[in-house]
Amino acid sequence: MNLKTLAIVAATILFSGTGFAQTSPSIKDDFKPSTFNQPGQEYPQVNSQGYARFRIVAPLAQSVVVSLGLGGTSGGTVLSKGADSVWTGTTKGPMEEGFHYYHVTVDGGVFNDPGALNFYGSTRWESGIEIPAHDQDFYALKDVPHGHVHQILFPSKSTNTSRRAFVYTPPGYEKNNSKRYPVLYLQHGWGEDETAWSNQGRANLIMDNLIAEGKTKPFIIVMTYGMTNVVRPRAGGLRSFDIKPFQTVLLDELMPYVDATFRTIPNQANRAMAGLSMGGFETHTITLARPDVFSHYALLSGGTYKPEEIKDKSKVKLIFLSTGQFENPDGISKATEALKTAGFNAVSYVSPNTRHEFQTWRRSLHVLAPLLFKD
Amino acid sequence: MNLKTLAIVAATILFSGTGFAQTSPSIKDDFKPSTFNQPGQEYPQVNSQGYARFRIVAPLAQSVVVSLGLGGTSGGTVLSKGADSVWTGTTKGPMEEGFHYYHVTVDGGVFNDPGALNFYGSTRWESGIEIPAHDQDFYALKDVPHGHVHQILFPSKSTNTSRRAFVYTPPGYEKNNSKRYPVLYLQHGWGEDETAWSNQGRANLIMDNLIAEGKTKPFIIVMTYGMTNVVRPRAGGLRSFDIKPFQTVLLDELMPYVDATFRTIPNQANRAMAGLSMGGFETHTITLARPDVFSHYALLSGGTYKPEEIKDKSKVKLIFLSTGQFENPDGISKATEALKTAGFNAVSYVSPNTRHEFQTWRRSLHVLAPLLFKD
Repeated sequence: MNLKTLAIVAATILFSGTGFAQTSPSIKDDFKPSTFNQPGQEYPQVNSQGYARFRIVAPLAQSVVVSLGLGGTSGGTVLSKGADSVWTGTTKGPMEEGFHYYHVTVDGGVFNDPGALNFYGSTRWESGIEIPAHDQDFYALKDVPHGHVHQILFPSKSTNTSRRAFVYTPPGYEKNNSKRYPVLYLQHGWGEDETAWSNQGRANLIMDNLIAEGKTKPFIIVMTYGMTNVVRPRAGGLRSFDIKPFQTVLLDELMPYVDATFRTIPNQANRAMAGLSMGGFETHTITLARPDVFSHYALLSGGTYKPEEIKDKSKVKLIFLSTGQFENPDGISKATEALKTAGFNAVSYVSPNTRHEFQTWRRSLHVLAPLLFKD
Repeated sequence: MNLKTLAIVAATILFSGTGFAQTSPSIKDDFKPSTFNQPGQEYPQVNSQGYARFRIVAPLAQSVVVSLGLGGTSGGTVLSKGADSVWTGTTKGPMEEGFHYYHVTVDGGVFNDPGALNFYGSTRWESGIEIPAHDQDFYALKDVPHGHVHQILFPSKSTNTSRRAFVYTPPGYEKNNSKRYPVLYLQHGWGEDETAWSNQGRANLIMDNLIAEGKTKPFIIVMTYGMTNVVRPRAGGLRSFDIKPFQTVLLDELMPYVDATFRTIPNQANRAMAGLSMGGFETHTITLARPDVFSHYALLSGGTYKPEEIKDKSKVKLIFLSTGQFENPDGISKATEALKTAGFNAVSYVSPNTRHEFQTWRRSLHVLAPLLFKD
């Protein structure tokens, strides 16, 4: 080992521990429990700059590493064992605003943080942490009228079971028995499920707040599981995905149940489909295959439409394309321009300083909702 | 140490390992994934005799112990590390039928089993396992019409927030806009929350199945958090519990919201309150304090009523007392006899071969529901 190599190794060691961050004068000492902690749990904590601090009890462990580090989902934070046999550590830098999945590796085993609530992502229930965002007001729990999120179990002949979906009905839905509503079918991403848009996406609170401010037309949102054919989600990736079983469940089983059970306006003009990531791929495929069903299409970090893919322009009322700033803003922007040039009502949205994560999608829904079902 | 002591120690050692169970010819090799596993997860597994088998990956750990052992919630199962660095182990005997909370202690730290779904109990989200029961049909997911479980957020001035509750509406609730329903307010136990009765209790499936068989009058069930005053549930036990804040939320805030939002029959004759364990204590206290509100009372492993506690016998339509066979069947039986002698319509139920756990309470609800709101 020569001197240069040694210097690099030393520098790596200096910056790979948590000591650097914990002793840095630039870290503000205003850590508070994450809003997504389990009741009464003090850790994990977040400070006003977005640093996260973790605390894990495992007195006999040799190694405890949290999967979150500087920035977004990359990197990790190696915890150190204190005199009290408790492992603690702080991220090496501020995390990006919004929601992040994470887990804790204890002596080579992957577990959840006992302090945090769990959210379904990466085909498992993972720990989640919320980094306060400058614009968090739009998805905050406020003293406004709240809609309901119904857990429904609808019959599915094609899969020979009762399947679960969640249905958001806007505030006041129960009051006026003659009022009918448009419907948005809203899909999660790969490895997530029908709980994602309410739990980590806060779709119901986003809608409650928008409706209270008079910024959107009230509508129903339907959220169901999109990886219908994947029996063992951990075993197969996107390559084993087949759209057919999901399309059958969505259009031939769930939609008739929703139209028969809820006071929907059951026609193409009042039906939208949107999805994030893999849910965008599903939206793209199904809206193109069945232009008679949906009139509003939205892909959130989920690709684009080309004008030539759409056979009958008159059937499409809105195409919404969004992405995180650190994803593919140029691609979204070019695709939107091409759609506009071809005469479509196309709108694009780029979420500032976010990547392929729920803060991008919360913001996207917040921008999308007011554009839907305009008369 | 004399010989007798040594013999006892030796016997203890012989029976405390997992080797005994794993090599016993009496254990049937028909293990299947627990029905409460996370999607696609093979472990934990359960066999037809009720043995549970666990598998935890933590290659560098020195000790992995599962909190479940022989029988119910007592004891533990020490896992052993295999050649593949994976920890496995089987309970030393069959588990009791039904649902059990558990956790995994890895090198002194308490974590959840990454293979199992989580359920809120003991003031945290814990792993859960389902041991197939001989009578599991009554809470199985079947091809029958299903009610909805609504997540509602109701305004609470006394606690200065929007609080969450779950409301079960029976199948067909949406179809007939003029039909109104009685309401059961159903409380969880200490350390649990408003998710317990649907998730581990399967209250919605029990009702769906009873209604499909024509065995119960359809009614609405309202479930909310009962430890209202306990800001940090882990810090305080029952001693820090105060009924007043909960009673205010339940009667002055939640009930008016429910009656204004759902098609209830908003009178005393059509209102029941029931609770398990601490929820029974709450039911007992509130029904006695406010005889004008509820007409049907049910305590599930939650104590008894004495005839002299009830001021106006004419206001009480039903008193239901239940318990697990391994809890306090004599106490329940004597209290019920005393109530009957005093002229009350009292019914008792003892759940066979169960203790203070959800199988007792699932069965109790199954027996209770058909007794409620009889004309």
